[in-house]
Amino acid sequence: MQKTIAVDMDGVLADVEAHALNLYYKQSGILLTKKDIEGRKEAEMLPDGLFYKLVREKGFFREVPVMPGAIEAIKKLSENFTIYIVSAAMEFPQSLPEKREWLAEYFPDISWRNIIFCGDKSVIKTDYMIDDHAKNLDFCQGKAIMFAAFHNQSQNQHLKFGNWDAVTAFFENE
Amino acid sequence: MQKTIAVDMDGVLADVEAHALNLYYKQSGILLTKKDIEGRKEAEMLPDGLFYKLVREKGFFREVPVMPGAIEAIKKLSENFTIYIVSAAMEFPQSLPEKREWLAEYFPDISWRNIIFCGDKSVIKTDYMIDDHAKNLDFCQGKAIMFAAFHNQSQNQHLKFGNWDAVTAFFENE
Repeated sequence: MQKTIAVDMDGVLADVEAHALNLYYKQSGILLTKKDIEGRKEAEMLPDGLFYKLVREKGFFREVPVMPGAIEAIKKLSENFTIYIVSAAMEFPQSLPEKREWLAEYFPDISWRNIIFCGDKSVIKTDYMIDDHAKNLDFCQGKAIMFAAFHNQSQNQHLKFGNWDAVTAFFENE
Repeated sequence: MQKTIAVDMDGVLADVEAHALNLYYKQSGILLTKKDIEGRKEAEMLPDGLFYKLVREKGFFREVPVMPGAIEAIKKLSENFTIYIVSAAMEFPQSLPEKREWLAEYFPDISWRNIIFCGDKSVIKTDYMIDDHAKNLDFCQGKAIMFAAFHNQSQNQHLKFGNWDAVTAFFENE
């Protein structure tokens, strides 16, 4: 039986960071780069708690660009592993159909059988979990793999990779 | 730490059977009782594969009545166990927001953190799983508890209870 990998969406498959910075630029005229927000917490990514307002807006999750390299990486990993997409979507109910549609567009080969929208991820048991949030990885039941993001810069308690090429290379030896 | 119970929605918390029979009666004028459909597969519950057409209709899952005794049982079980609602909702994307709203109406004390909409349930690891489908229970990682339904009448490979009072009584000794 193939080993299983739980793959997070926001900040891992979906470039939420780029999308939020782009929307902020359109709304404010202020251009923040990925470098500008490095080390900030998610809540402080944009001024006045704007990030959490943006993610609650209709359409936010449907329009997020796909993370560079993610499509190729999932295709490659699917050859030897069973992939589950596991997104903590339940906090934002409006995101549920949007995330489902987004996955159908960018990852049409992922079956509905392998998609999980949840709240906390503590009852998800896969052999590996790829996520950008320590709260999901710290207690996960498989091998934790942190996907680097602006908000986890100082967190190094897990195996950590900066992009999808590095993740794919790691799994070549697993 | 409290033990965890994964609780299915359709056929367990939500009386999908009663709802489908009621809709069929409204559409056809033919009154089928629970007794009439006992032992049938889900696909054969109604003539001409109508059941699977009904569940794909907008509003179907939002309007399902709650299973008798379910609200009281979940309240009681929540005193000693951590409850996760785990629904194989991903096959029917239109059901995602409807099921979220339905849960908010009937089970407002269940946090979004404890709700999981998935495809197959094989990567869900809880101490117990209550479900009406053998396909979810046969490979589940905790103790399987089958909730009786018309379509599982001949399946007796798991601990099986016919209503929520019986489930609650079982958990009093766990």
